Amino acid sequence: MKQIGILGFGVVGSGVAEVLKINANGIANRCGESIRVKSILDIRDFSGHPLSKLFTKNFNDIVNDHDIAVVVEAMGGSHPAYDFTKAALQAGKSVVTSNKEVVAKLGQELTAIAKKNGVHYLFEASVGGGIPVIRPIGTCLAANEIRSVTGIVNGTTNYILTEMFEMGRNFEEALADAMDKGYAEKNPSADVDGIDACRKICILSDIIFGYNVSPEEVKPEGIRSIRERDVQAAEKAGYSIKLLARAEKCPDGGLYILVCPFFVNHDNMLAGIRGVFNGILVDGNATDEVLFYGKGAGKMPTASAMVADVINIVNGRAFTYSWTRPPISVVKNNAERSSAFYLSVEGEQREAFFAAMGGKDKIFYDHMLDFISDIMPEKEADKIMAAFPGVTIHQKLRVLG
Amino acid sequence: MKQIGILGFGVVGSGVAEVLKINANGIANRCGESIRVKSILDIRDFSGHPLSKLFTKNFNDIVNDHDIAVVVEAMGGSHPAYDFTKAALQAGKSVVTSNKEVVAKLGQELTAIAKKNGVHYLFEASVGGGIPVIRPIGTCLAANEIRSVTGIVNGTTNYILTEMFEMGRNFEEALADAMDKGYAEKNPSADVDGIDACRKICILSDIIFGYNVSPEEVKPEGIRSIRERDVQAAEKAGYSIKLLARAEKCPDGGLYILVCPFFVNHDNMLAGIRGVFNGILVDGNATDEVLFYGKGAGKMPTASAMVADVINIVNGRAFTYSWTRPPISVVKNNAERSSAFYLSVEGEQREAFFAAMGGKDKIFYDHMLDFISDIMPEKEADKIMAAFPGVTIHQKLRVLG
Repeated sequence: MKQIGILGFGVVGSGVAEVLKINANGIANRCGESIRVKSILDIRDFSGHPLSKLFTKNFNDIVNDHDIAVVVEAMGGSHPAYDFTKAALQAGKSVVTSNKEVVAKLGQELTAIAKKNGVHYLFEASVGGGIPVIRPIGTCLAANEIRSVTGIVNGTTNYILTEMFEMGRNFEEALADAMDKGYAEKNPSADVDGIDACRKICILSDIIFGYNVSPEEVKPEGIRSIRERDVQAAEKAGYSIKLLARAEKCPDGGLYILVCPFFVNHDNMLAGIRGVFNGILVDGNATDEVLFYGKGAGKMPTASAMVADVINIVNGRAFTYSWTRPPISVVKNNAERSSAFYLSVEGEQREAFFAAMGGKDKIFYDHMLDFISDIMPEKEADKIMAAFPGVTIHQKLRVLG
Repeated sequence: MKQIGILGFGVVGSGVAEVLKINANGIANRCGESIRVKSILDIRDFSGHPLSKLFTKNFNDIVNDHDIAVVVEAMGGSHPAYDFTKAALQAGKSVVTSNKEVVAKLGQELTAIAKKNGVHYLFEASVGGGIPVIRPIGTCLAANEIRSVTGIVNGTTNYILTEMFEMGRNFEEALADAMDKGYAEKNPSADVDGIDACRKICILSDIIFGYNVSPEEVKPEGIRSIRERDVQAAEKAGYSIKLLARAEKCPDGGLYILVCPFFVNHDNMLAGIRGVFNGILVDGNATDEVLFYGKGAGKMPTASAMVADVINIVNGRAFTYSWTRPPISVVKNNAERSSAFYLSVEGEQREAFFAAMGGKDKIFYDHMLDFISDIMPEKEADKIMAAFPGVTIHQKLRVLG
């Protein structure tokens, strides 16, 4: 029997206990031994709870307990989650987490501490919730050089965008609906401004390309600016609008990291991902595109990924990624990156602007003009836009190439 | 440096050599040492080939070579692939294969031999080509009790069905086009009659449910019977038609195994999988549905999966599945299984038949009547059909529930 400690008994932490309980037999079969929760750290009162005897308010009860081999961190936030994780690793315990904030900011240090102490720091649940993606990248796609990774990694924004497309809602209405359904928090900024997606693409970049990418190096653009007209234009032209988190490797070894709404052609599987679902598309030089799809959040899916990490530690199949922190950032300026753009513009010179941007079909043409430009470096697009001061740019979105 | 032998230098075998060459640096990094092809078995003449010195026509040169730790079997067919695999495992060499025929028929014995000899028998490439699915099921989804697995696992038939839907072709025209493009073989039976898909669902059932399911226990239904009218009816009702391979676990522990064309609602991600692509949807009790999607065949994707298996053996992260052969088959009679059905019928009593089947909307109603029935056990549907001898059943397809 292997014993574990759980830090934080909120939605995810209690889900871990539940998965271990309902699937106990299968888990014991796959581990060769059973897994039992020995202690749970939570500052709240759980005196009436069936597991009440397991609760403690003192982290030392867990970190100093030699019976506990694995610590499941389900607290969220940077502190004290980071501090407890570091202490547990240094005490020779493996740590499993869903905490994308800690992994994105401090994962490089924590994986190094884990390796130094001969234990594991695993975070499958930090990207894509219950969808297997972190581990398959390191094992199943190991024969590939990965060229890019592109994900719908935030279910809240994908729900909002889906509602805007399918129900004809505007952003505020769709956001209010997402709040009603519990998909968006009262302060929705981390989701709708792309902060959550930014953390996740940093983690994917770290493990795929081997260089640390910090959230501070990425400027996420959220979905607040998406208008009903943009949605209608996208539909008419055969596209969906998706908040994508994307990392591309360039021939010079640098990375373009983008977190922003994209026009995504209906031919692309990402365009068909609806509602709160997530999908991560990995492009390898041997496999071509592989998509991992499923529920990116929620109690049981997230807990499922964390318990799988625990199982892999117990049966000796775990491995901890490592990546380096280069002296000079590998993140390139997106101004150099080439793309087609969806533009929605107003002004007398809009026809001349359309021509200058190498516009193809006019999607809508009234007092405004909506179109998709030729492919060009972003700085070139910005230069042309600056050359038409009389043209008002109401929207500029990248088209996924 | 680890050395490998390759059995068969056709499309897949040569792909393995190519992946090892073009991605040599990354592979060496991930293994901690380089991987080199030492010998290649092929009865054909490769005297002008850049690797000509590595070729042998004698299997003993590989099985008796103590420098070779891993054998990559890329021959296809049951014999001598099975015999060589068995001999290599007994000689203490791990074996990696894409040979679904051997794994589906004889995998239970070969995995047992591998375990007995302390080596591995890995077959990630046997289902879904380059798509990671075999390994993630055993590792990432290990915390789940899997309720069902449903796959588009044959790219040829999915291409044909996609052409029928998108280009308005009939089956014969779409098959001819698939042959022109090299997606279908001259004798297309293994693909269009569901034999290939049947092998793959047997492998998935083996590893997921732990009981051996033999291809002989499954009666695959192919796609030859799909008419243009069925395609038009599906489109009108909001469905696609897909050849699915599906295994469902029942509360009594038995399995329903189906390989047949299904009506798949457009809301289901499987409906959006076009052309030669594959997708495998795994439904776990904690994750809910997770989809793995990508290129299910082809030289480089298949080779990518095989080389990943080799890498996992070299760096100690491999594991070999095992499953048992129960004295009584766990495969249940599909007559007991409940489903809604798409029916296309002719005859004066077609309206009464529609009512008896609990039909809902009439999709097309002319000299024939096309509709979707209520959900009922298949034997119940067959009983009602038998009670209307004057009604001719032109088509009966299961609707994915």
